[in-house]
Amino acid sequence: MSIKSILYVLGKILFIEALLMLLPLTVSIIYGDGSLFAYIITTVILFAISTPSIIFKLKKPVIRAREGLVITGFAWIAVSLFGALPFCISGDIPNYLDALFETVSGFTTTGSTILSDIEALSPSNLFWRSFSHWIGGMGVLVFALAILPGNDTQSMHLMRAEVPGPQVGKLVSKIRLTARLLYVIYIALTVIEAVLLMLGDMPIFDAFVTSFATAGTGGFAIKNASIAAYNSVYVDIVVTVFMLIFSINFTLFYLILIGDAKSALKSEELRWFGGIVLIAIAVITLNILPLYSNFGEALRYSSFQVASIISTTGFATANFDMWPTFSKTVLVTLMFFGACAGSTGGGIKISRVAIIIKTAAANIKRQLSPRSVITVKYEGKLVDRQTRSGITGYMFAYITIAAISTLILSLDALNFSEAFTGMAACLNNIGPGLGKIGAVGNFGDLSALSKITLIFDMLAGRLELFPILALFCPATWERI
Amino acid sequence: MSIKSILYVLGKILFIEALLMLLPLTVSIIYGDGSLFAYIITTVILFAISTPSIIFKLKKPVIRAREGLVITGFAWIAVSLFGALPFCISGDIPNYLDALFETVSGFTTTGSTILSDIEALSPSNLFWRSFSHWIGGMGVLVFALAILPGNDTQSMHLMRAEVPGPQVGKLVSKIRLTARLLYVIYIALTVIEAVLLMLGDMPIFDAFVTSFATAGTGGFAIKNASIAAYNSVYVDIVVTVFMLIFSINFTLFYLILIGDAKSALKSEELRWFGGIVLIAIAVITLNILPLYSNFGEALRYSSFQVASIISTTGFATANFDMWPTFSKTVLVTLMFFGACAGSTGGGIKISRVAIIIKTAAANIKRQLSPRSVITVKYEGKLVDRQTRSGITGYMFAYITIAAISTLILSLDALNFSEAFTGMAACLNNIGPGLGKIGAVGNFGDLSALSKITLIFDMLAGRLELFPILALFCPATWERI
Repeated sequence: MSIKSILYVLGKILFIEALLMLLPLTVSIIYGDGSLFAYIITTVILFAISTPSIIFKLKKPVIRAREGLVITGFAWIAVSLFGALPFCISGDIPNYLDALFETVSGFTTTGSTILSDIEALSPSNLFWRSFSHWIGGMGVLVFALAILPGNDTQSMHLMRAEVPGPQVGKLVSKIRLTARLLYVIYIALTVIEAVLLMLGDMPIFDAFVTSFATAGTGGFAIKNASIAAYNSVYVDIVVTVFMLIFSINFTLFYLILIGDAKSALKSEELRWFGGIVLIAIAVITLNILPLYSNFGEALRYSSFQVASIISTTGFATANFDMWPTFSKTVLVTLMFFGACAGSTGGGIKISRVAIIIKTAAANIKRQLSPRSVITVKYEGKLVDRQTRSGITGYMFAYITIAAISTLILSLDALNFSEAFTGMAACLNNIGPGLGKIGAVGNFGDLSALSKITLIFDMLAGRLELFPILALFCPATWERI
Repeated sequence: MSIKSILYVLGKILFIEALLMLLPLTVSIIYGDGSLFAYIITTVILFAISTPSIIFKLKKPVIRAREGLVITGFAWIAVSLFGALPFCISGDIPNYLDALFETVSGFTTTGSTILSDIEALSPSNLFWRSFSHWIGGMGVLVFALAILPGNDTQSMHLMRAEVPGPQVGKLVSKIRLTARLLYVIYIALTVIEAVLLMLGDMPIFDAFVTSFATAGTGGFAIKNASIAAYNSVYVDIVVTVFMLIFSINFTLFYLILIGDAKSALKSEELRWFGGIVLIAIAVITLNILPLYSNFGEALRYSSFQVASIISTTGFATANFDMWPTFSKTVLVTLMFFGACAGSTGGGIKISRVAIIIKTAAANIKRQLSPRSVITVKYEGKLVDRQTRSGITGYMFAYITIAAISTLILSLDALNFSEAFTGMAACLNNIGPGLGKIGAVGNFGDLSALSKITLIFDMLAGRLELFPILALFCPATWERI
């Protein structure tokens, strides 16, 4: 393990965080909102810590799979630890653990909040909170790869550890060019959504922070009532469509950009995703019909909520905790499915769900003829043993973490369904669960132990478990 | 697919059911309880249907893996369909679907009941209900193998489909001798428990039916208050100990019988099982301490309930629905763990849980050094690829069934935690869930759709999914 290389890259990442923090700092100046001092202090600290990594260039940084995991794990923890400072110093979230929870929830694009009155935050803090979704959505390491010079083969291990999905899809052969292309698509889509929201008479500040939270599939809103506050069918439709867009594998947008829309539409993951979304919207619409005045209204709320949960965004336009158990159970199921691989969304990912269902079906056949070789095809190709065993390893680790987290949460003043959905909401980076921590509740009253557990879950969920688990594994720290 | 062979073996199985039904028929005569007619009718029907299979011997029955699965699936369905008749004809459970639910719950050793007043049943029906646990515990096909003549290599496929666990452990090289040995141990342990219960002043009838339900890890009691009705510390201790005994792989009892207790105690599964039981009892005892007058009482109720749930029996001495969320969540977690492979218990099985946890840990190491070969050892041996992929296939099918069942149940008048634990209680063959269907509730008020779903879950759970899934798989019915 090359500690020097790890510290070197971590320094670069914190330098980028310092640069990004100039944006909320500027917002604070524009609004004169009193949080300026907090942002100046934090930015100065970040620059002070990170400058050595920029000035002194490490000749041969060593980034193998091992360092890739550790750097990614530590980078996310470090960025969160410093990112929480402005909330704390400005006094908007005086308790540091709460500020850290909120920041981790931001960067991991979870959107669970400890705040009961969101609107009491200063504009710069509201901006930073939503902007953290945007940074975390595509990933801070991918951002570093996009803008900083470096070595391609080494970068692969960072990309692999941060981009979600069972396989890493490079758009082009060069990893840094891929990172840059991803960010270009990401920025373009974010701006388009913001412009469309402004066309619906949303103020420019609201339009951008809402777009940040949608793009990162995060879910922090700047209103206590979430997106319901705008009370606009147009806004609901724009946000619904963009939540779904940001749930799709970015490789498909690249294919469309280079004129190969045909290949994009052939994507098996896209078809599974579309099928699941349509079925979920249909059954929930029928189930909640009696609660609303007409079919259109039921469709509006059900499609918004389905898009919000499957994309793992977590925005709300309706208090779905009041919906019938069936609709809630469909939503809880979608929580685990999550978005497509290679998107900004969380969860287990549609690719894995599809391969899991196909493997289960193939296994019935294997039982019928034990000696025959059963193969599973996905995206037109055979699923190789490495991918399959990777998914098994991921699922087994996922189930273990889910069970232990639920057990720890159940020590708190929650009922079983709150403990279970609280875990599900954080481990899958969604935001709200059911009951006390549901769409109209918040995570503020939880014990410190629960908050720490959920911080772990959010980070583990966003990084697909292993970069965070590796930090706690003695083998990581053994000399090779 | 050899339909002739399937019908031939099914006939034999129903013949055995006819023989077994002579026992409740005798009970009915002794008690003069008015259910005699129902048992005579059912026995006559069973003999009429099954006699051809006994008289006309099929020269060369073909039982490959395929037929093994189908025979097992159909045998359990057929035995349940006929086994439900006495409840219905005697008028004790007039609705046939309810009678079928109760019978499937009996044979699969689940112990979920649709009855609100169990004590209203006639003695022969109470006997049959508990005796079905005993038959289902070790398995009706294993029983057939033990007492009927036949071919050993063919029988292996039946044994494999009915005995739970990731691998089939033959005690001795001859499969029929193994089946006979298993039943001898089973009968001996059952009688010992019944005698011990009688020594605690339990009436002989109660002692035997309680022992049947413990041996099969079923959970049907003949009192509305379950085992709590006896209000005896001695009875609680005997039942707790025997629930744990029947959760252990029967191979270990065989090893002890042949004087190799040392190998038995070295069993890795036994150590995992013991560790989990002790930890669960310790944490629940501490958690429920404030609810009881002293430590001893808390220990008594917590150890009984832990043994009851992990063995998947489902007896109750306390209404654990009133316990704190943490204790309930520990119990829900144990519901999924289940008993040891090769026992009469249900659930995912400790072997699989242990291999899952070890595979998850090994995968962290694989992420650290992607090119290294990671191996998982269990019971001192390398887990081979076939076992590992079998467990993956099982888990993926299990998760799929669990999710779909919860969704269907949530259409009923249940909340999320009731729908989830109801599925868990039936799929893992335990009995009670939480809330409305908890220790003091019952499944009687559920819709027909929910009952059919749970009947499917109970059968799928007892037969470890594939024999039941195979019936619905078109590939099963294709010509080879």
